[in-house]
Amino acid sequence: MLNEFEIIQRYFTRAYTRPDIALGVGDDAALVVPPIDKALAITVDSLVEGVHFSSDISATDLGHRTVAVNLSDLAAMGAKPLWATLALTLPKIDEAWLHDFSAGLFQTLDQYQVALVGGNITRGPLSITLQVVGTVDSKRALRRDAAQVGDLIYVSGTLGERLYRPTPRVELGLSALGFAHAAIDISDGLAQDLQHILTASKVGAEIKAELIPLSSSLKKNLSSEQAYRLALTGGDDYELCLTVPPVHQATFEARAQTLACPVTYIGKIIAEEKLLILDRGIPMLNSQTGYQHFS
Amino acid sequence: MLNEFEIIQRYFTRAYTRPDIALGVGDDAALVVPPIDKALAITVDSLVEGVHFSSDISATDLGHRTVAVNLSDLAAMGAKPLWATLALTLPKIDEAWLHDFSAGLFQTLDQYQVALVGGNITRGPLSITLQVVGTVDSKRALRRDAAQVGDLIYVSGTLGERLYRPTPRVELGLSALGFAHAAIDISDGLAQDLQHILTASKVGAEIKAELIPLSSSLKKNLSSEQAYRLALTGGDDYELCLTVPPVHQATFEARAQTLACPVTYIGKIIAEEKLLILDRGIPMLNSQTGYQHFS
Repeated sequence: MLNEFEIIQRYFTRAYTRPDIALGVGDDAALVVPPIDKALAITVDSLVEGVHFSSDISATDLGHRTVAVNLSDLAAMGAKPLWATLALTLPKIDEAWLHDFSAGLFQTLDQYQVALVGGNITRGPLSITLQVVGTVDSKRALRRDAAQVGDLIYVSGTLGERLYRPTPRVELGLSALGFAHAAIDISDGLAQDLQHILTASKVGAEIKAELIPLSSSLKKNLSSEQAYRLALTGGDDYELCLTVPPVHQATFEARAQTLACPVTYIGKIIAEEKLLILDRGIPMLNSQTGYQHFS
Repeated sequence: MLNEFEIIQRYFTRAYTRPDIALGVGDDAALVVPPIDKALAITVDSLVEGVHFSSDISATDLGHRTVAVNLSDLAAMGAKPLWATLALTLPKIDEAWLHDFSAGLFQTLDQYQVALVGGNITRGPLSITLQVVGTVDSKRALRRDAAQVGDLIYVSGTLGERLYRPTPRVELGLSALGFAHAAIDISDGLAQDLQHILTASKVGAEIKAELIPLSSSLKKNLSSEQAYRLALTGGDDYELCLTVPPVHQATFEARAQTLACPVTYIGKIIAEEKLLILDRGIPMLNSQTGYQHFS
């Protein structure tokens, strides 16, 4: 049976040769070297078995998902992710599971050039907490409280489908720096997450439901109204919702197109502090509804 | 019933007015401003109910302990802790528990001027993961791989007692920068943790067991040999073990005295790559033994 040090050594230790990593896994703490003149963006997210995933998810998909949900948060700040730490709680040592989980984890970390620099493994109910640190120009970061009246509201990709392998929109967030005012990642449903921007920015929004880009499975399997409701209130899309001043609309759309990242205009920011959702002109939903862990 | 946003707002949100915090709790990520010319030290630790603590620990003590075990890791690097994120998994909403836990957490964070800048609350078996980021001069950081033959081995405080309120030796770690070569915090037992330094540094050590500073409860309740064995192999001391070159011995001891932090010489680093523990000259224990979560 492997002990915790052997597990870390075998499955979670990479020899990085990057100038920004002075000391990786294996000491009391990792040492990394931040660039000068940038702020650090720090985020953490946990995935708990039975809450965020069921036991039928593959370990590889779970490894991917662990990274994706965290990078999505940094994407929503316009931050460049650099370093991650992993806190893993395991009920037992299953080497096949560890192999597959770490493969999915590193595949996605590598894809975004994020280094796993530290962590902790302990015994307990299956739960995975990843913390990611990135860098961003503090003055241009895409904050929730920066939406302005008149901004155009965009969402990336399509909504309404819980995906095993969500795509964190890191490049979109980076390319929107200086062009978008505010952003959030859609993890609890568009209506609820957009409401966080509205509350923080002390503004409202008018959304045209028929403009919301629906996933193909939603369109295939549900009535139009059911599909829009699910797209508004479902979670786990990990797309971005951004507000863009009209003056930057063309640039923002062009940059998204360069990235082959679909973005769709769905409404605009208004002064009245409410969220108005219209279905072909008729009010559809006027309060936030979404996924809350304790509601 | 409070939802997750209300819990975060009520119990885990502080309005910090610090120039190094551009954006705290409440966005997709926190934004902090690191000092120029320092490396970042990043560490994470989890406390799981039934593994790291039993249900009889008070929520206040648990809040304290959560911070202390993480700061202890940064202390062992000689890093100055600055920012923390909390991932909390709770089986239910218990406001009295949340009140007491956050009180203990913030009391200890405040004591060391560490800001809670972000986090995540979810439903699940009780488990607490804190991640702390600090700063350190990368060239002087107290790494495990920096011990040298002839170094004097010191431990702080006393060993052999599992404490509800361990004291992280942050100031000692900071004051040892430039004077100690290597350091580790003692969380799995002195023998095992010292072995990590020896392995990383490719050296050995000769320890005089009778010099190990024993906690008063060990001295009171156990025979001399039992007490030394427990001090060597018990965990959760959260004291530091440091290696100091003889040329800096006087300065190191004087600085520790200034901090009113007891430090005790217990042996020295040798070239032969083994850990030799002598009890009044007689070999006592020559392999590492300590707490491992999966052994």
